[in-house]
Amino acid sequence: MADVAAEAHVSVKTVSRVVNHEPGVRPDTAERVKAVIERLGFRRNDGARLIRQGRTFTIGLVVEDLANPFYSQIGAAVEREARIRQHQLITASAEGSPTRERAVLEALIARRVDGIVVVPAGETPSADPTVEASGTPIVYMDRPVRGATNDTVLSDNQGGVRSAVEHLVAHGHRHIAFLGDDPGFWTARQRRESFVSTHRALGLPGPPRVSMGPHTTTSIRDLLAVWAHDSDPTTAVITGNNRVTLAALHAMRDLRVSLSMVGYDDFELAGLLDPPVTVVHQDPAAMGQKAAQQLFARLLGDESAPQTVVMATRLIVRASGTRRGGPAR
Amino acid sequence: MADVAAEAHVSVKTVSRVVNHEPGVRPDTAERVKAVIERLGFRRNDGARLIRQGRTFTIGLVVEDLANPFYSQIGAAVEREARIRQHQLITASAEGSPTRERAVLEALIARRVDGIVVVPAGETPSADPTVEASGTPIVYMDRPVRGATNDTVLSDNQGGVRSAVEHLVAHGHRHIAFLGDDPGFWTARQRRESFVSTHRALGLPGPPRVSMGPHTTTSIRDLLAVWAHDSDPTTAVITGNNRVTLAALHAMRDLRVSLSMVGYDDFELAGLLDPPVTVVHQDPAAMGQKAAQQLFARLLGDESAPQTVVMATRLIVRASGTRRGGPAR
Repeated sequence: MADVAAEAHVSVKTVSRVVNHEPGVRPDTAERVKAVIERLGFRRNDGARLIRQGRTFTIGLVVEDLANPFYSQIGAAVEREARIRQHQLITASAEGSPTRERAVLEALIARRVDGIVVVPAGETPSADPTVEASGTPIVYMDRPVRGATNDTVLSDNQGGVRSAVEHLVAHGHRHIAFLGDDPGFWTARQRRESFVSTHRALGLPGPPRVSMGPHTTTSIRDLLAVWAHDSDPTTAVITGNNRVTLAALHAMRDLRVSLSMVGYDDFELAGLLDPPVTVVHQDPAAMGQKAAQQLFARLLGDESAPQTVVMATRLIVRASGTRRGGPAR
Repeated sequence: MADVAAEAHVSVKTVSRVVNHEPGVRPDTAERVKAVIERLGFRRNDGARLIRQGRTFTIGLVVEDLANPFYSQIGAAVEREARIRQHQLITASAEGSPTRERAVLEALIARRVDGIVVVPAGETPSADPTVEASGTPIVYMDRPVRGATNDTVLSDNQGGVRSAVEHLVAHGHRHIAFLGDDPGFWTARQRRESFVSTHRALGLPGPPRVSMGPHTTTSIRDLLAVWAHDSDPTTAVITGNNRVTLAALHAMRDLRVSLSMVGYDDFELAGLLDPPVTVVHQDPAAMGQKAAQQLFARLLGDESAPQTVVMATRLIVRASGTRRGGPAR
């Protein structure tokens, strides 16, 4: 109730009145309180129901690396959803290793967490009998798990890259390259595929220029040194995620070339760079919130068929895609 | 053992041989394995001892906001220390509210976590009887709690600001201003005090120019519009933390002034801005690691007097402090 009151900017007493259908609350205030209650997933009897079912009031979150802003924003959002519902969140990093991920999942299940949100390290289903037999609700996010029948929250990777290519083409670019992350990641392959198919659909010249990672500043510098100076010079690049964007920005600075660019993933200082960096924004906080909400729906007894939600991305246009690139000017 | 093996780039069998003093391991390899064991805090019988003592193998971490890079780096470091010791980490955000912090602490204690690392929201000791009576080991970090007799890990805030002022003075600045964060934070006040005392010690002209936050881009823009253009124009600013740095960078861009600057807290793109931003780096990952290590020492029976560790900061010199500032050039 305190969370609802704070969120709706009213007193706890007012929230109590609305919940218990008591008089003395203005209709528009009541509407606002109801909207917040709906949004926060607050239900008067949820807590009691969960206790009756022998729950531990903990959920788990397994990500690759909490220090990466993409994952820390997911973590903050999942933790908030848990806290609002009086649950605690156990976070664990798998550091990209499916083996470690399995160990972490088993430990969470041994701890009897009520449910788990997982950004999977690999794509093979967790055939691990402990995980399967536990019946613990699991929601996957960011990357699907092949053969798994779990709720899954994804981002529209293909649409995101398509919007980046279209933006660059609309500003006169014809020679666009794609710098992807490690193709071991499903998201990296989705984005590459979208780049190749959009390149073809828009009739851009030549075979699509693609280099998948893992990338470093050095590897990108070597690529750009060739691509920016051959007979059909690349004038713009699209990066595959925040890690690659950072390496590409350093590489361009080192080479003193200023290609046009659209980065995948928004980042805090994008607007302060020269030029400000246009990005595909996939809103990790909203993805984390959605995944947690789906998990809590299951914990409250939702037995409908598993669903996959694909969340839209948004192109944030600043300036880096709109100027013609080339060697240092 | 698997963690030690991975870290030392040897097989688990080799680690086992070293631990059990079996032959067949080259001396330099054995040394490396021992160093990793020491560093990771791995002890053969720790787990057994903890189980005998009825531990739950969970620790808690309470911070202000996991999505802020300062806290997410602390979170990743504490989680890693916990994982290495087969503990799980429950993270919780107090969002700067002492009331919420107390609720979160009580919930962690009710859950019987073995210990808690807390970045305190306020400065008054947790006189809460539940927290006190539980006897749960608590390590405070970043900010001390008045009257508390807990282990505490702090950063050298005063030394950090002093190094920033001295750097600017060494590059010819005499009119330096300090833009602090909310004086409700102990760290913000420490940094302000250091600015004022260093200003005096170095004999800089006039009363020190200080404005404490919370700051926004607008509030800083208004200040700089005055300070940069009066009879003794401010030529350099020191910001009080990563939030203020970001607001100040936006404000200077909006005003098209380019004052010299030293930011408090390093940030990922500092080197890519024009000019690259000189910062005071306080290494939140190292602070989180240290706090977790102190907590685990207590869990393993260390009953020595509580200690306060003050970790050094480091000035990372890029270019923003070395040029003379002023109105747009």
